[in-house]
Parts: sequence; C-alpha cells; structure tokens
Amino acid sequence: MALVKKSDRKPLLAITLGDPAGIGPEIIVGAWAETVVHEICRPVVVGHPQVLRRAVALWQLDTRVVEVDRPEDARSAPDLIACLPCGDDNVLDVQPGSLDARSGEAAYQAVVAAARLALDERVDAVVTAPLHKEAMRMAGHCFPGHTELLAGLCGADEFAMMLYLGPDNDSASSAGLAVVHVTLHTALRQVFDELTAEAIVAKTRLADRFMSQLMNTRPRIAVAALNPHGGEGGLFGDEELRIIRPAVDRARSEGLNVFGPFPIDTLMVRARDGAYDAVVAMYHDQGHIALKLMGMHRAVNVTLGLPIIRTSVAHGTAFDIAWQRQAETGSMIEAMRVAARLAIGKSRQR
Amino acid sequence: MALVKKSDRKPLLAITLGDPAGIGPEIIVGAWAETVVHEICRPVVVGHPQVLRRAVALWQLDTRVVEVDRPEDARSAPDLIACLPCGDDNVLDVQPGSLDARSGEAAYQAVVAAARLALDERVDAVVTAPLHKEAMRMAGHCFPGHTELLAGLCGADEFAMMLYLGPDNDSASSAGLAVVHVTLHTALRQVFDELTAEAIVAKTRLADRFMSQLMNTRPRIAVAALNPHGGEGGLFGDEELRIIRPAVDRARSEGLNVFGPFPIDTLMVRARDGAYDAVVAMYHDQGHIALKLMGMHRAVNVTLGLPIIRTSVAHGTAFDIAWQRQAETGSMIEAMRVAARLAIGKSRQR
Repeated sequence: MALVKKSDRKPLLAITLGDPAGIGPEIIVGAWAETVVHEICRPVVVGHPQVLRRAVALWQLDTRVVEVDRPEDARSAPDLIACLPCGDDNVLDVQPGSLDARSGEAAYQAVVAAARLALDERVDAVVTAPLHKEAMRMAGHCFPGHTELLAGLCGADEFAMMLYLGPDNDSASSAGLAVVHVTLHTALRQVFDELTAEAIVAKTRLADRFMSQLMNTRPRIAVAALNPHGGEGGLFGDEELRIIRPAVDRARSEGLNVFGPFPIDTLMVRARDGAYDAVVAMYHDQGHIALKLMGMHRAVNVTLGLPIIRTSVAHGTAFDIAWQRQAETGSMIEAMRVAARLAIGKSRQR
Repeated sequence: MALVKKSDRKPLLAITLGDPAGIGPEIIVGAWAETVVHEICRPVVVGHPQVLRRAVALWQLDTRVVEVDRPEDARSAPDLIACLPCGDDNVLDVQPGSLDARSGEAAYQAVVAAARLALDERVDAVVTAPLHKEAMRMAGHCFPGHTELLAGLCGADEFAMMLYLGPDNDSASSAGLAVVHVTLHTALRQVFDELTAEAIVAKTRLADRFMSQLMNTRPRIAVAALNPHGGEGGLFGDEELRIIRPAVDRARSEGLNVFGPFPIDTLMVRARDGAYDAVVAMYHDQGHIALKLMGMHRAVNVTLGLPIIRTSVAHGTAFDIAWQRQAETGSMIEAMRVAARLAIGKSRQR
C-alpha cells in the first residue's frame, strides 16, 4: 500500500544504485546530504551497501549506511542512509569507470528488486540511478535502456519515455514542461517504420494523463513535426500530412487539448517560454537536445504508462568522470522530488 | 570594389527587402533606427522604396527613404534609408501576411540584384531579409531556400548553411559558436542518402575556414553523431562507424582540430558552455533546435563557400505577425554586424 502510514505523508522511494562503476553511487550520497531531500520523501537505496559506503568515503562524509530487510523499516536523515542489500559481492572488485558484466548484473538486479517492491506497493515510487546498457548486455540482459526493462517487468504495452523539467526552471509554465517521445532508443533510420498515427495518439494520451495529474486541468500539448520546417507542405517529406496531422486530429476528437504538427526548432522555444505544457517529440534527439539545453542537471526522466511511478536522472553513467566527485547531484534531487510529487498525487486520487 | 574608399572603413552592405508581405521590411526599418547599425556599416536596401516607406509609416518614424542608382552613393543614417529600387509596382497590391507570387518575384529579384552587386564587388556583403519559398515557387523560382538560390547565382559547388551566435551571448567561447549543416532543406528520410564522408569533410573544412577568419587561430570543431546516444557502438544505427568517424579521421589527417562524433544532445550543452567553437550537424533540426534555444533573436544565418559574404536573419517571413510591429529586430542587427565583421576580415586578408 502506498504511503504506508497515513500519519506519515512523506512518500517512500526505492532508489536503485545504478551501475556501481558509474556516477550513480556518488550522486545518491551527494543528494542524500541535502536536507530538502528528507523533507520531501523517505528514500531507501536498493543496492550493495559496501558500494554506498565507498561513495560516502569519496565525499568524506560521516553518513552511516544502515542495512534494512524491509523498505518499511527505512529511516531517512542526511547522515543516515537506509539500504536494502542487493547484488553479489563480486561487484566490489569492479574498477570505477569501467565496463563490466558484474556491474551490469548488479544494476539489473537492483532495478528488478525495486520494481517488485513498487508493484507490491511496498514503496510508493522507484527512482533509478544510471545503468550502462552495454554492461547490462554483457551480463546477459539485452534492453535498450531502463524504460524498456521496466516496461517488461511491469508487463506494460503502452509506455513512453518522458523528459520533464519542473517549474522554477527555465520553463515559464507553472507545471513545468514535459516532452514525451514517440520513438526512442532506435536508429534514426528506423524511426520511419515505427512512426504511426496510433503511436502518436497513444503517447499524446500519456502526456495528457501525466500533466493532468500535476496541473488539475487539461494540459496544452504540442505535437512536433518530423521534417525540417514541418515538411513545408510536403516539399521536404510527407509524414506530417500522412501520419502526424491525422494523429493530432484524432487526439483532438478525443477531447485532448492538442495542437500541431509544428516545426520542432521554433516549437521548443515557444514551449520553453510557456506556450505549451507538453511536447510530443517524434524521436529521441528532438526532445533531448532541447531539454538538456534548458536544464541539463535538472531534467528528470519519467516512464509513462507503467502501473508504478518511476523517475530517473536524465543523464548516463558518465564513466569518464565517475568516482571523482565531479558529478552533479541536481538531477537526482529533482528525480526524487518529482517521484514524491507524483506519489502524493496518486495517493490523493485513491 | 570592396570597402570602396580606403578612408571609409565601414563596409557597404546590400540589404535585401525579403518578401514584402512578411516581416522583412519592418525589421529593416526597425534595425535602421538603431545608431549602432550606422557605426558598424553603411547599409543600402535593395527592394521597392514604397514598401519601405510603408514600413516607416508602420513604425511611425520620420525616416526618409532616398532612392539611389548606385550603391556607392548610399548615405547611411538612422533617419535616412538609402534604397536601390528593385521590383515591379504590382507588389504594392499584395496584402500583408499573404502568400503571393508577386511578393515571391520581388523577393527573388532583390536577391539576384544584391548578389550581382556583391559578385561585381560593388558592395562588401549581402544581408538578406526572409523570403517565402512557396511564394517564390509560385513566381516560378524553385529553390528550397536562400542558401541554394545564392549558391546557384554564384556558381558555388561546395557550400553550407551555417547558424552563428556571436560572442556576448550564451556562448562562452570568445568567437561565438558556429553550427554548420551537412544536409539541410531535405526530408529527414533523405538524409541517409545525402550523408557521405565527403560531404562531412567538406562542411568541416568550411567551418574551419570561417571560424579561423574570426579567431585568428584554428577553431575546435565537434562533429555530431546522427543516431541517439551516438549509435551506442552500432546498437542504434551504424552511420557513426561507417561514415562519420572515418570523416572525422580524414579531416583530422588534414590538420583540422576536429573531434567526434558525439551524441548531439550533450554535445550542444558542451558547445554552448565553450568547449567548441563550431559544431558540424548532420541535419537541419540538430543545429536549429539548439541555436534557436540559445538565441532565437540573435542567431544569424551565414552561407559558407560562396565567393561573396552573405548573412541573414535566422527566422522566416512570420506572416502571422507581419506588419503588426511585433517582429524582433535583433537578428537583423546581428546579421548586419556579422556581415560587417566578415567584410573587414576579408579586406584585411587582401
């Protein structure tokens, strides 16, 4: 059950450790030291406690890592990290910043364990630190990323990867800006096969549902064009005419407050300036170029369409700077903040 | 010839009026009123003087429009616009904000006249206000945009469209940030056919030459990947391995200071923060999403590889707000500033 004790309004979040060779452990420990984190949620880490202790030592903190058997037992404080042990000791031999099957296995196990806790309603949400898909593949788990892995674990057919920038950022809209991707971890060449009106309508519905939860009103959604200048009426490609415009018409006929297709370059400027609450992007980089420029260290990744709440940092394992105390903790704090907000919104709807 | 009188260091710029139904006339008149424009250059408009006078009236200014026969006779002052008459009187019947073959013809004629003046070295550079390619097509001139039209007029085989943000903007690099596009006004689906190692190397050379002129040192150039995450070593597309990396290697073997391919989303953040002086983008929106977010009203369009200097505003005709005094003049002022700077650089090299 969500928000276990009625008296305790702070959502219980399972934080996966991510790839132990990446920046996951240090951004979790870094975020933990911020008082604000403990005001908004009760976090518990799922991963190897000894890796966490090394990250504490890296930051030269006095934080204690306390192992718990059940998430319900987690106590949260800036100097106290609750950890649900997960994964084999062999991960302790992995070199920082290296690609290793043992890290891939550890990262995978933590996601599986956290997702199960959420599916069993023993935690209110899952927040994931970055994993490395090549390391995970070396361990025998072939997923393009967290999104697809979690969709598989949850048995979700219709899901989407969303980037989200909360309010008080560059976004002028009070609920922030959400960007949902119709296609994601796929070669650009494959986008044309995957881009259907059905997929666009489905992702638009997911964007509508997500922002409706945050806003208590119907969000204004803009759908991106695929081609430069929106295809210029068919001069530079006809996907707008054949696929995207019919999808927008269909979504509008369902009552959604949706507009487009619009050329993505000027659309993103208008969305940043508050003209829309959500953008439906046709492919990965359409959304990622814009959101990373708007808030590289504040953007949060949210998986839509799952039966559980899941947020994540919007960056990768950053092996090149891992375990060097250079990693920014902002995105992890934001991921926890958004997860907590969504959990509270969900509990209110019950 | 360029910088006609040695005593007069201010470059002589031919400013095309653009599509008379769009925002071109009003942004020219708006920019003209800024004293700074006349400190950096001597501008002369190529277009219909009566359209200019209407734009003066729109802004409720006292500026006089004086017709001249030769660009050399142009006097420049905030209250005095020199105009080389060009185009038929029938353009005066066109409705503001409307698509019209007569406007398309007028816009086309102004570009042709200005390009000839530059090719004859009677002006130092051409600065273009936006035209509408559909209006131009209705007039029988089929070009995807200014870039291709000017390349045709100049007989240039190897050219590129560059977006440029000057210093004192978001870019931390002292010479600003240039983004060159390998493919441009083409359907996204066509990018795969047009993307060759030869084209990438050629555009990288053009970026190197342009920024070398501005910086007096070899620029640091980053080449973008095509696929999300840079293809993840072939998992999401192999253009990086087959085409882009070999192109980067070849450009480096020629002595260029070039790196990549890098995933475009994080690359653009690093380029904005000063890590690179130029980015080679694989397709239109890779560059345009980023530069418009970084400086929508300050970005300038520069055509590389022409025998003449040509800059332009980075926006379109904006029919929806044309002749309503809502248009931003910043990009026009920047386009004139960059053209003047390039003209001075070119004259020094003689």
